[in-house]
Amino acid sequence: MRILLTNDDGINARGLHSLINELNTIAEIYVVAPRSEQSGTGHSITVFDPIKAIETKIPGIKKGWLVGGTPVDCVKLGTKRLVPEPIDLVVSGINHGSNLGTDVLYSGTVSAATEGVIMGYPAIAVSLDTFDASADFSFAAGFTRRLVAAILQESMPRTTLFNVNLPLLPPEQIKGIRMTKLGTRNYDNLFEERRDPRGNIYYWLGGGVLNEEQDEDSDVYAVEHGYISITPIHLDLTHYGLIKKFSKLSDEYLNNLLRGE
Amino acid sequence: MRILLTNDDGINARGLHSLINELNTIAEIYVVAPRSEQSGTGHSITVFDPIKAIETKIPGIKKGWLVGGTPVDCVKLGTKRLVPEPIDLVVSGINHGSNLGTDVLYSGTVSAATEGVIMGYPAIAVSLDTFDASADFSFAAGFTRRLVAAILQESMPRTTLFNVNLPLLPPEQIKGIRMTKLGTRNYDNLFEERRDPRGNIYYWLGGGVLNEEQDEDSDVYAVEHGYISITPIHLDLTHYGLIKKFSKLSDEYLNNLLRGE
Repeated sequence: MRILLTNDDGINARGLHSLINELNTIAEIYVVAPRSEQSGTGHSITVFDPIKAIETKIPGIKKGWLVGGTPVDCVKLGTKRLVPEPIDLVVSGINHGSNLGTDVLYSGTVSAATEGVIMGYPAIAVSLDTFDASADFSFAAGFTRRLVAAILQESMPRTTLFNVNLPLLPPEQIKGIRMTKLGTRNYDNLFEERRDPRGNIYYWLGGGVLNEEQDEDSDVYAVEHGYISITPIHLDLTHYGLIKKFSKLSDEYLNNLLRGE
Repeated sequence: MRILLTNDDGINARGLHSLINELNTIAEIYVVAPRSEQSGTGHSITVFDPIKAIETKIPGIKKGWLVGGTPVDCVKLGTKRLVPEPIDLVVSGINHGSNLGTDVLYSGTVSAATEGVIMGYPAIAVSLDTFDASADFSFAAGFTRRLVAAILQESMPRTTLFNVNLPLLPPEQIKGIRMTKLGTRNYDNLFEERRDPRGNIYYWLGGGVLNEEQDEDSDVYAVEHGYISITPIHLDLTHYGLIKKFSKLSDEYLNNLLRGE
């Protein structure tokens, strides 16, 4: 079995290296990871610039590259050009900080896994709910190994993307695993306004998560209450219900829309 | 009525200016657009750097800013800080080039509209199927005005994101409007390998769209066959079918996954 491992915190992040040491006991690991931190890059790709990929030695893996691009670039370039053999799974993480609710759209970690699915592979994104750089990733990494083994043995579906978030708790305090839906994440005081030395206004993205009522079956609720959250994610963004509704629009209405009255 | 207008081709793009002249006949226009071309930026946001927003004079609009960030930054900053009054709608475009199928994930144009919906506004993304810089945007802009009027008058739903793609055809040759689902877009020869003057390998993203069989109800099929495609898009990425399937997993299975055997 072969795994393409990537992340959005960059190739030196502890979360990524904690995964190597667990996953290399069950599969060959190819690391294709960004040279620098890429948080918030979402599903962006490098369209207008060349992408450098430099082979790098990492103990415990089959081969590794540091890529001057986004997490999605890493997965595209990794699966299409760099990794010389067919892979079985894309793993993205372990991210430093959770990726929950609507925030998954901004997440480089989740977007890398999404790109894995687009390229035709099962994929999981794993995040630990802490920004503490010295946090202990070992339980999260061990859990990821067990989940990956279950996916590769097909006791879990191989055709989808799993977004996994772990609470930062000692293992014995973790209450269980919940299969969840995406919750909501809204922020207040989103932008701070400042002035540069020349008096021009600029903004910093900041803000805190609003403490909103969450559905009990959501990922946000699960992690806040001490559970590991696993959200199955699909890529079909079409709103079929509305297509049905539109089919009732008259030809006259549509013709007016098309040509104007 | 007030419209926040943005795009991913940058504030000087002809597609954006063609829209101003149509939309300002039915609403006040606030332009919040990127300083430079942002194609392929997807749903990325500027997390670690300050964002400059410089007010700029554009004839025919209420107020405008050029923003040193991504299309999603423009919508977030525009709705939360820059535009002094509540808006009714976010319009993104008109993009130079179509945004169809799975490619919507990479699209700054569509992601800006997505961000509009996240911020609580109805939103539409509009793209014209051509990279010809001298293309005629006037019919596409007029059509967008009629569609926007329909949304603002609520003869179309106000709660969703519409992804609109127009074929590059003389108006009289456009066959009609189709409500579509997202199709598929796959590419071959995705990366070109080159060597820099020092002998290091680098890659360019390139490749051509694979000519794949498309479902007749897809956006790709519609635009290829001379129709305007309107795809309603939702943001609920949860795969509910799989959650149901998971509910059959035994406690013993989940406990083994959690703690290891």
